[in-house]
Amino acid sequence: MRTVYVIGIGSGDPDHLTLQAVAALKRVDVVFVIDKGEVKEDLTALRTGILDRHLEPGSYRVVEAADPERDRRAGAGEPGRSERYTAAVVDWQDRRGSLYASMLAELADGETGAFLVWGDPSLYDGTLRLLEGVEGIEVVSYPGISSVQALAAAHRLILNRVGRPVLITTGRRIAAGLPADVDDVVVMLDGGTAFAQLPDDEVADVEVYWGAYVGSPDELLVSGPVLEVRDEIVRLRAEARERKGWIMDTYLLRRHPGDR
Amino acid sequence: MRTVYVIGIGSGDPDHLTLQAVAALKRVDVVFVIDKGEVKEDLTALRTGILDRHLEPGSYRVVEAADPERDRRAGAGEPGRSERYTAAVVDWQDRRGSLYASMLAELADGETGAFLVWGDPSLYDGTLRLLEGVEGIEVVSYPGISSVQALAAAHRLILNRVGRPVLITTGRRIAAGLPADVDDVVVMLDGGTAFAQLPDDEVADVEVYWGAYVGSPDELLVSGPVLEVRDEIVRLRAEARERKGWIMDTYLLRRHPGDR
Repeated sequence: MRTVYVIGIGSGDPDHLTLQAVAALKRVDVVFVIDKGEVKEDLTALRTGILDRHLEPGSYRVVEAADPERDRRAGAGEPGRSERYTAAVVDWQDRRGSLYASMLAELADGETGAFLVWGDPSLYDGTLRLLEGVEGIEVVSYPGISSVQALAAAHRLILNRVGRPVLITTGRRIAAGLPADVDDVVVMLDGGTAFAQLPDDEVADVEVYWGAYVGSPDELLVSGPVLEVRDEIVRLRAEARERKGWIMDTYLLRRHPGDR
Repeated sequence: MRTVYVIGIGSGDPDHLTLQAVAALKRVDVVFVIDKGEVKEDLTALRTGILDRHLEPGSYRVVEAADPERDRRAGAGEPGRSERYTAAVVDWQDRRGSLYASMLAELADGETGAFLVWGDPSLYDGTLRLLEGVEGIEVVSYPGISSVQALAAAHRLILNRVGRPVLITTGRRIAAGLPADVDDVVVMLDGGTAFAQLPDDEVADVEVYWGAYVGSPDELLVSGPVLEVRDEIVRLRAEARERKGWIMDTYLLRRHPGDR
């Protein structure tokens, strides 16, 4: 039997790691690394920092592979979860699945391997899904601080109002309009700044709490009424993306901000 | 200036604590403790265990107070977020606010105090809201592993499907029916088992992933089609609540479980 840990390492601050995750890391024989191209430098630095800090050099092996290319244009401009978008993601995940299976072949019987994932394995990360189909392994998931929580902490936010719901969704989805029945919407995976393109009357009573690279030294935070701060966020985001080559941002849209 | 930390300590496992939270605890002069009645024994054990493990005895003071009573019958049986329910919560939070202000008076200028909260300060916890109005303090929020994440990890779940949203809501809300436009719904703060009372045809294609005391030695987990496992969950929950005197449970309802 082989064991595979999926360990959430938080969203940029190496101190987001839980004591449980540190203990799990110390039991690992192999660390699996998926090279994500342009975000590589920062991700690698975070990961290497974590491994160097908590593990003895030479006590583990690293198995690395490049992430398969994904067709990011598929379904572009189509609102919501278009079929072409889903098909492109599913195809990409299938190819990743084959890759993971070949990486896992490096794990000997009785050994334990680990995938270190940004944020939390349960939120917009496909690693657990990819491991589901692999035979002969036991999978263990370790929660990590997600970018949603890091965003909330940075802004000292409670995401929900008293007895009310919170929706976690994608930029693609809110581009088609804000939901009518939920007043607190967290947006992840926004390739652009979908909220800034919404019609004025739809965001007239909406505040945004935005953050990029939250928890890291590059952290950017802006909050305020959408109509007042959206241009600043669009500008800051474009500059940061240009400067660093990649961006990871998250935001909360809060309708009727005066409510408790 | 006085500083107040709100530290998420996870949902039952002391190893859910992040390295950041441990470092923050070590800077604390005063730990504020709100006595929550029946859940006290377990909460106190978790909290005491954490403090004893990470802090030197005598290096901090503890300021304790009893949580004000809340009218839990207000709005009972009324679906959704009834006005009477909200009023009762707001009234209770106001009384808690006065309590917090008097506790904070124990904090001298230049000192740092901390409230240790279950789970994550940003999700269904009122501490940050209560501190908002207090003058002369700087508030810092430290994220913690929420029961939602602990539940997901225990079931090895990804909460969202590809490119799709997740709603985090309350038992009260889903008692009025599942949302039409979201297929993945996490339910917190369910005083009963609201999902088990939904009509059969509404849950015919819904799976539930349920957990109580997740992360603790008392952890209970059940998953499966709602129609098949709801009776077992209702029974287990009632037994556990009877045995321990309190229960904290969370669950995911997943419609069309075959979708990716």
